[in-house]
Amino acid sequence: MPPSDTLSDALTAPAQRVEAYMARYLGTLGLPKNLDEAIRYALLGGGKRLRPILALHSAASVGGSTEDALVAGGAVEMIHAFSLVHDDLPALDNDDLRRGRPTLHKAHGEAMAILAGDALLSLCFQMIADEAPSPEIAGRLTTEVASGTTAMIAGQVYDTLGGFASGLSDEQRLELIHRNKTGALIRASCRAGAIAGTRGAVSEAHLEGITRYAEAIGLMFQIVDDLLDVEQSTEHLGKRASKDEALGKMTYPVVLGIERSRDAVAALLGDAHRALEPLGEASNPLAEIASYMAVRTR
Amino acid sequence: MPPSDTLSDALTAPAQRVEAYMARYLGTLGLPKNLDEAIRYALLGGGKRLRPILALHSAASVGGSTEDALVAGGAVEMIHAFSLVHDDLPALDNDDLRRGRPTLHKAHGEAMAILAGDALLSLCFQMIADEAPSPEIAGRLTTEVASGTTAMIAGQVYDTLGGFASGLSDEQRLELIHRNKTGALIRASCRAGAIAGTRGAVSEAHLEGITRYAEAIGLMFQIVDDLLDVEQSTEHLGKRASKDEALGKMTYPVVLGIERSRDAVAALLGDAHRALEPLGEASNPLAEIASYMAVRTR
Repeated sequence: MPPSDTLSDALTAPAQRVEAYMARYLGTLGLPKNLDEAIRYALLGGGKRLRPILALHSAASVGGSTEDALVAGGAVEMIHAFSLVHDDLPALDNDDLRRGRPTLHKAHGEAMAILAGDALLSLCFQMIADEAPSPEIAGRLTTEVASGTTAMIAGQVYDTLGGFASGLSDEQRLELIHRNKTGALIRASCRAGAIAGTRGAVSEAHLEGITRYAEAIGLMFQIVDDLLDVEQSTEHLGKRASKDEALGKMTYPVVLGIERSRDAVAALLGDAHRALEPLGEASNPLAEIASYMAVRTR
Repeated sequence: MPPSDTLSDALTAPAQRVEAYMARYLGTLGLPKNLDEAIRYALLGGGKRLRPILALHSAASVGGSTEDALVAGGAVEMIHAFSLVHDDLPALDNDDLRRGRPTLHKAHGEAMAILAGDALLSLCFQMIADEAPSPEIAGRLTTEVASGTTAMIAGQVYDTLGGFASGLSDEQRLELIHRNKTGALIRASCRAGAIAGTRGAVSEAHLEGITRYAEAIGLMFQIVDDLLDVEQSTEHLGKRASKDEALGKMTYPVVLGIERSRDAVAALLGDAHRALEPLGEASNPLAEIASYMAVRTR
């Protein structure tokens, strides 16, 4: 069976579970009404939920509980949502459209978008501390998610504001951007899922397999994203297409060309599949997700 | 001896220790050069360091180690620095001057100010996870600092964007703003310091005393701040004075009048001193800090 253009319901089932989990957690907080609305707009307004899906399947692939991994899935989705809200701001990417709807600062104002993004970032760690099965697991999850978040922000700085060490080639800079900007949080999603789902009992060998898988698909995800920006329409993507080119951004198609970019996707997909071999059949869903990610069209 | 207008060197000694601690931690990270510079500008550029001072003296007052409390002091100062950077942004308070220097977005641009603020928030939790003596203590510190941070953000939302439940009086709204906006992080500073300094061994009774002390001085701090905004010059404060009035903000002098605001300061100072009684002489520095905070002129 060739990889499908959509993920099966079984593979995407974690999305709704994590959505319900985050909605329940937000309901416990007593936030200002307008802040709560803005957070829900940004967090519960659709999206692919790739990171929580990876977190829960990573948990299952190392013999863990997907229920115990919900906190990890929610945490990385909160970080992803915060990053979209802030990246869309006028001073950064200045995007008006996200998932086919107005971006948060268009819908709720720029002040609220800054503060709601901040709140999502803080709430991620508050939720980890409140909901992890023990303070020790909370500490380990905080390590994964915080270091992934800092790297993601560093990647956004490299991408939009520079700050590179001297002597790097364009290709090296591009990989540095993407391993940080997209890859680090995907890595954190998989690792945190495996750690939370096993309550810390995941073996070093299994965590290493999960980590190599995540690093491969993280970079692959960004190359595919760059290719989609060149090849797809705004209507199909639900966000503005060809904006990378309009902004003169360094992307894989620009630096490597389209064919070499596609070759890189194929090579990384192979890396991802090989990384899962030590995990056996339990990791089949992760393998299928990687295959989907290589051929997705939005 | 009447309370002094400046704190003694012994009382402010934690400021430099926490500054050195944070600078050392930043040096381990390998951040993009421009991001590192912006973070250092915001974090190491002076300021009263009230929160780290409280964290370390809280540790000592419950028989803990100030060395072990450095991570708590650094964490709350990072949160404080992040909040100043984002609150100063054009979409929020739109301030050009902070501590007598250009604000971060004036010095490094608005995009960098948003991202450096985000990075400070993320790094706070990364540092807790990296530096706390155990994952368990990291989890407990994350609880304190994250819940304090979320409350601080909620307080900023109440203050600038509303979102109150219906039926509150002006005085109730004002207290809700300030217990969140300023009080929650001061509470977190003292509690996190006591927890980190004792490696979690602080007694419930001592932690309760620290908590009541912190809640009293947190509200007092904001009332004094409001009074200073009315009474002092921009030059003396190092930030724009009378801006609350210019913005039509609800403040204690506006809602209660100046005399009743001063009475509230005196009552809260009494509460703070009484809260420390169970801690004995070890808490004398905290008592002295409270007395100073009641009469500070900037």
